[in-house]
Amino acid sequence: MRKLYGYFRSSAAFRARIALNLKGLDYELAIIHLTKHGGEQFAPEYITLNPQSLVPVLQDGELTLTQSLAIIEYLDEVYPEPPFLPQSAIERARVRSLALMVACEIHPLNNLRVLRYLVRDLKVTEEQKDEWYRHWILTGLTPLETRLANDSATGKFCHGETPGLADICLVPQLANAQRFNISLDAFPTLVRIEQNCMALKPFQDAAPGAQPDAE
Amino acid sequence: MRKLYGYFRSSAAFRARIALNLKGLDYELAIIHLTKHGGEQFAPEYITLNPQSLVPVLQDGELTLTQSLAIIEYLDEVYPEPPFLPQSAIERARVRSLALMVACEIHPLNNLRVLRYLVRDLKVTEEQKDEWYRHWILTGLTPLETRLANDSATGKFCHGETPGLADICLVPQLANAQRFNISLDAFPTLVRIEQNCMALKPFQDAAPGAQPDAE
Repeated sequence: MRKLYGYFRSSAAFRARIALNLKGLDYELAIIHLTKHGGEQFAPEYITLNPQSLVPVLQDGELTLTQSLAIIEYLDEVYPEPPFLPQSAIERARVRSLALMVACEIHPLNNLRVLRYLVRDLKVTEEQKDEWYRHWILTGLTPLETRLANDSATGKFCHGETPGLADICLVPQLANAQRFNISLDAFPTLVRIEQNCMALKPFQDAAPGAQPDAE
Repeated sequence: MRKLYGYFRSSAAFRARIALNLKGLDYELAIIHLTKHGGEQFAPEYITLNPQSLVPVLQDGELTLTQSLAIIEYLDEVYPEPPFLPQSAIERARVRSLALMVACEIHPLNNLRVLRYLVRDLKVTEEQKDEWYRHWILTGLTPLETRLANDSATGKFCHGETPGLADICLVPQLANAQRFNISLDAFPTLVRIEQNCMALKPFQDAAPGAQPDAE
């Protein structure tokens, strides 16, 4: 049995759901509510599964996998169709680089635990917290728009005409931006790609609002 | 000609240097001083190269690559020996997951631009900034130690008896911790692996102190 530990609003879990859906793989959802009961990610049983107390975790038989990008690359190696990465090393580097621009430069800064640290430990105001969120999204999306808008390798999706690793990272990040009412007017290429993704059932079914724990 | 744009103190550039050295590849260094002249990463010519204004960038003939992990995976695909990732998908997922625990959960939070935002925009004190740095290093290294110490797949290095992707990420992160005088006493496995890495010339030659721009 394949089981994904996640939370509807976690964008890393959203990535894993898109990847599983694109590969056409069945999975059971185990909901780890990140804000209820002091945070279910801190429960001893969950820490045994993932000492990082982060979602997602993918269990596949005996196997326990953490870190969404490692999970997605694993799925792509074990279930090659449809591929998440192009064929040539150069193109693969392009797609990984686009994905990492989201996964390493935006998302880690706007994680729940980081926002909590700002409020609890650094005593920032709600406005400062929202501005922090906005700042890192805009700082990250601006060069991503530049790169995608000016490269002929960009197609209907981040790379060519089929969705892949970069789209899997982009869509949840844009969903976060929208949830925080951040205007995406400056990012027409990103918005166009997101719309192309969200026209597809694997993306729709993975969306936060489509999850059983959605609030 | 292969050219690496970097800065001696950038731990993402340090990763790329280790990877190039382990593969035995020659490269020229182009120094992008991140704090001098208002930050050379913001110069128009550099932004053309990398709109993210981050280091490293690898130029390999016509090819321009950004994002250290994408660069390292590219080098591993094009120059397979010695491999940075094990053979099986399961083991590869393990190594990628360990690497991402550093690259996605620690390093992005302690980047120069983030520390600057804390000081300039959120007006935190020097003590608060240092505590932030310490907090995210300890939060990240603690589960990494747990995972590595309790897994028989850990060997002389993060995975088995040869250095790979996870070691390439770990060593620069521990160098950062030491630069900020953070005690590593609670991380005997990480320290042991770091010592095994730093006994090797490719790691030694990549170290910040061995770079021409070292201060």
